[in-house]
Amino acid sequence: MGKKRVMVPVQEVDMSAVKYQQEDFQAPHLTGFVFKLFVWIIETPLIGPLIVSFVKKQNKFDELLQNTDIPEAPMFRPEFPPQEPEPGVVMLDEEGKPEERVELALKSLPQYDPASCWNGDSSSSFRYWKIRDYAYAYRSGRATPTTVAGHIISVIKEFSSKKPAQPLLISFDAEEVRKQAAASTRRFEEGSPLSILDGIFVAIKDDIDCYPHPSKGATTWMHEVRSVRKDAVCVSRLRSCGVIFVGKANMHELGMGTTGNNPNYGTTRNPHAPERYTGGSSSGPAAIVASGICSAALGTDGGGSVRIPSSLCGVVGLKTTYGRTDMGGSLGRSGTVEIIGPIASTVEDVMLVYSAILGSSLADRISLKPGPPCVPNISCDNSNTLGPMRLGKYTDWFNDVYSTDIFEKCDDALNLLSKTHGCEMVEIVVPELEEMRNAHLVSIGSEAQCSLNPDCEDGKGSRLTYDTRTSMALFRSFSAANYVAAQCLRRRIMYYHMEIFKKVDVIVTPTTGMTAPKIPSSALEDGETDLHVTGYLMRFVLAANLLGLPAITVPVGYDKQGLPIGLQLIGRPWAEASILRLASAIEELFAESKKRPVSYFDVLNG
Amino acid sequence: MGKKRVMVPVQEVDMSAVKYQQEDFQAPHLTGFVFKLFVWIIETPLIGPLIVSFVKKQNKFDELLQNTDIPEAPMFRPEFPPQEPEPGVVMLDEEGKPEERVELALKSLPQYDPASCWNGDSSSSFRYWKIRDYAYAYRSGRATPTTVAGHIISVIKEFSSKKPAQPLLISFDAEEVRKQAAASTRRFEEGSPLSILDGIFVAIKDDIDCYPHPSKGATTWMHEVRSVRKDAVCVSRLRSCGVIFVGKANMHELGMGTTGNNPNYGTTRNPHAPERYTGGSSSGPAAIVASGICSAALGTDGGGSVRIPSSLCGVVGLKTTYGRTDMGGSLGRSGTVEIIGPIASTVEDVMLVYSAILGSSLADRISLKPGPPCVPNISCDNSNTLGPMRLGKYTDWFNDVYSTDIFEKCDDALNLLSKTHGCEMVEIVVPELEEMRNAHLVSIGSEAQCSLNPDCEDGKGSRLTYDTRTSMALFRSFSAANYVAAQCLRRRIMYYHMEIFKKVDVIVTPTTGMTAPKIPSSALEDGETDLHVTGYLMRFVLAANLLGLPAITVPVGYDKQGLPIGLQLIGRPWAEASILRLASAIEELFAESKKRPVSYFDVLNG
Repeated sequence: MGKKRVMVPVQEVDMSAVKYQQEDFQAPHLTGFVFKLFVWIIETPLIGPLIVSFVKKQNKFDELLQNTDIPEAPMFRPEFPPQEPEPGVVMLDEEGKPEERVELALKSLPQYDPASCWNGDSSSSFRYWKIRDYAYAYRSGRATPTTVAGHIISVIKEFSSKKPAQPLLISFDAEEVRKQAAASTRRFEEGSPLSILDGIFVAIKDDIDCYPHPSKGATTWMHEVRSVRKDAVCVSRLRSCGVIFVGKANMHELGMGTTGNNPNYGTTRNPHAPERYTGGSSSGPAAIVASGICSAALGTDGGGSVRIPSSLCGVVGLKTTYGRTDMGGSLGRSGTVEIIGPIASTVEDVMLVYSAILGSSLADRISLKPGPPCVPNISCDNSNTLGPMRLGKYTDWFNDVYSTDIFEKCDDALNLLSKTHGCEMVEIVVPELEEMRNAHLVSIGSEAQCSLNPDCEDGKGSRLTYDTRTSMALFRSFSAANYVAAQCLRRRIMYYHMEIFKKVDVIVTPTTGMTAPKIPSSALEDGETDLHVTGYLMRFVLAANLLGLPAITVPVGYDKQGLPIGLQLIGRPWAEASILRLASAIEELFAESKKRPVSYFDVLNG
Repeated sequence: MGKKRVMVPVQEVDMSAVKYQQEDFQAPHLTGFVFKLFVWIIETPLIGPLIVSFVKKQNKFDELLQNTDIPEAPMFRPEFPPQEPEPGVVMLDEEGKPEERVELALKSLPQYDPASCWNGDSSSSFRYWKIRDYAYAYRSGRATPTTVAGHIISVIKEFSSKKPAQPLLISFDAEEVRKQAAASTRRFEEGSPLSILDGIFVAIKDDIDCYPHPSKGATTWMHEVRSVRKDAVCVSRLRSCGVIFVGKANMHELGMGTTGNNPNYGTTRNPHAPERYTGGSSSGPAAIVASGICSAALGTDGGGSVRIPSSLCGVVGLKTTYGRTDMGGSLGRSGTVEIIGPIASTVEDVMLVYSAILGSSLADRISLKPGPPCVPNISCDNSNTLGPMRLGKYTDWFNDVYSTDIFEKCDDALNLLSKTHGCEMVEIVVPELEEMRNAHLVSIGSEAQCSLNPDCEDGKGSRLTYDTRTSMALFRSFSAANYVAAQCLRRRIMYYHMEIFKKVDVIVTPTTGMTAPKIPSSALEDGETDLHVTGYLMRFVLAANLLGLPAITVPVGYDKQGLPIGLQLIGRPWAEASILRLASAIEELFAESKKRPVSYFDVLNG
């Protein structure tokens, strides 16, 4: 007898005795009729909750969050100890104008050399057009925002007329894009572009407001109950830099999934392999960037939603520190794990967009003490600047992936980095990964449930996808005490990470435990639930969400099937600059081996 | 159709249009067999949750916390905007030694005049012995801690041998008391008392650790699963001042009730009327002070638990600002609404104990910016210092009490105060009182549930009182989303209060909506549930808990039955000094009208 489990206080845990434990999800893969039947059953009063309760028991949920005495006090939001300032950075002014921040960030970049891409010798290996390539083209008269807009509009129309539908954008208005492009073109004609981002095409995930588009969060009804009257804070900052918004990018419904499967509007396809998922939930943002249509996109990341699709589509995605970017005007504005972050084809472009959007009233409001906003000073960089960086690797975890290609390519990148930049690899241990998964699930699920409850009680619940309804049935079962217990775990896991960050500067992992999974044809119409795929996709991303840490994914190669592999760098609180610098170094090492995606469109040249 | 309710953003609420709404609880008063049957039913799987769900629906719980769209982000703990420093105070050093703080606080008091009580002319009206009276007695050789200990030990033994049992203390060890008293007596003989608190007798509520006593929280089993190896932080501070601990004071089981009913150890009786409740949950602490046995006691206050019994027993109780006192070593160390606070017979004594115990690592840990710790400088006080104080009164609420005596006596006190000290009364409105009640209930309930879950799953639940089990059945039904919604309400209600505090310095209310209720004889053996009494007792206390504000109760007279009435002063965040000063002025006005409690023991004179 005695079901009670007692954790020792976190300071007394012997980290050297920690053993890595593989995930062991007990749940079926369901699609089609059986999936629909399953959802019907778990939504049935009395029986439904019993089944959900059974699934939770099988997965040790109660053991971790109900029967365990956790000695730590709850940490309801990430609380960071004071941080040392990062070395070799350019400081940005959080209160200042976005366009001024972008100009400062621009000065931190190496000199732009038009010859590198405009003189024809770049045909040897594939390379995306960068923001500075567009800027050069606009300023040298090789293109105008209007001509580029024309190409983009035709590509997007082509995409959305495919059968079955696989739209990159959920909301798109060609006229609106033409108008913005015309205004930008006029600014160039008048010699007064607003910033380096003027005339740059950006997509916004459908859970972030971008006027005049509705924000549906990829549901079929959200716009009926929530109207959009202005831009989200981040979007309005980009707009004041001259950015052209192409529309609202597709996503996994309400961000509650990691594949990008979407029965409502069609599932976005991976630009490297159209029969495969993009990953999610920011499926559209990653795909539209990876296919070359937009220079950048804004996504949201509450459980890897920026990093997972960026990794699977072979682009760069930044998860910012909790409280670094303003959530005002997004559907997830009240959560404790979610942020808005940029996706682009290069680290440089991620950095430019990041410097435009950063700054948040949240930090103030919740008495966070935000670290200084800055970007790495790469312009005066040299191999030695990176020198003393210590990279923490938990090998047992790092290697626990679907195919060996993944950790091998990630290891190659790290070895190359050590050789060329003298980085030091440090073996680390991250205890309580299972507790971390559960604490994150309860936090994100309960917060989503809270904001959706009024509409679900109002009958909108049955208009959600089966996938979302499965998640909601689980989330509904979380008790308030579970939520508080999850926050106690958050404090423990924050402690472990702060201990690790005493020994290393950055934690490195593969971004995902598998490359882009195949889309089962049976999952196109009604979605699917597959916790094993979810587990592989989310395996490495959660610490950054639960603890609010900054993290970036950067491509480091391809698996045997030619699918992109991403390496994840997790930084100290507020240390976006460190991971951007490191990502930039890694990117440089792999610049020559980039593959052209199957669905690539050269919108700059038409 | 459309069950959804949408709140307007709090900044847009028209406070002038707010109408006061009386509470309307729909729940039966249960005792004896029916109560036991009810608990058995609500603990039955499937049926139990349905009944709890029905009771919640009747009381609009789902309407407020499930179907309502609350536009504010959650505020998981009280977050205070920066506060102006209080005028006319003596600053204390949070990091310094407790005994040095007490000496500084002592200097802030008016000169002590032994003649006022030792020359026999004090017989006209009743007056408790103050800490400084004991101190004078010890220093002038009129008494020693050892002689006083002897009297206390015999009174306490007398109490606990009553039938039925009504112990003031749950854990008591005469030998331990004698030892402490002997050590204190020795210090006086050697001329080296540790502070003004040396030799002062204090009781500690049973949910705060006081070595070597067990901490049972008035349960029958808590000591089996949780051992006490040292003093709680607050207790150890008092110990280093020379305080003598008489033992662990009785309480409502686990603090989950406001009457002090206790089937496990016997229900403490009100010293003014032994057939009536003391109020709770700090029943023993308030009663032991009110009956003259101890100079002070430490209680915990998560939902009025210090203030309610202090008010009902005619003594002074201080609820400190959230984060002002350290919760280390108490059962409620992880909550967001609970604090440790002192109870004493006079404001002066509350102030001395407060200055010894203050200081908390919590504020640091959760990045609260604590206001400066200080006490009012009363030594150089005069009638005019209080002059410009603005007192906020919400008349409709203020007057919503069980008998008119209550608001009349409170009004008398305020009128007298205005006349003698020139305080200005300002009519205010406190919106969303029902939301406040629900947000508080969900917060305190879920946090208690979380810390008790492991033991309940381990079979200890059935060893709780029927009263506690009823509460737990309710708490278990709170969903994680309810908890998050409650925190959104907390942000709204904090906003309203900060708006009010722009116009007033202190909010005044009766402490309780009724004076000490009768103990139904049918409730002695197995307890009772009576939400109407609970409602009256808790009506005015919750803002201080949900929002973390400091509040004090001070006696202002008696109702027609001779039962004490308390006035509550709620201060700005961290403004303990302001409410202590005001309470001291009020106390002075009523010094002559104090009644001797029926069960009063003059332990100083034996």
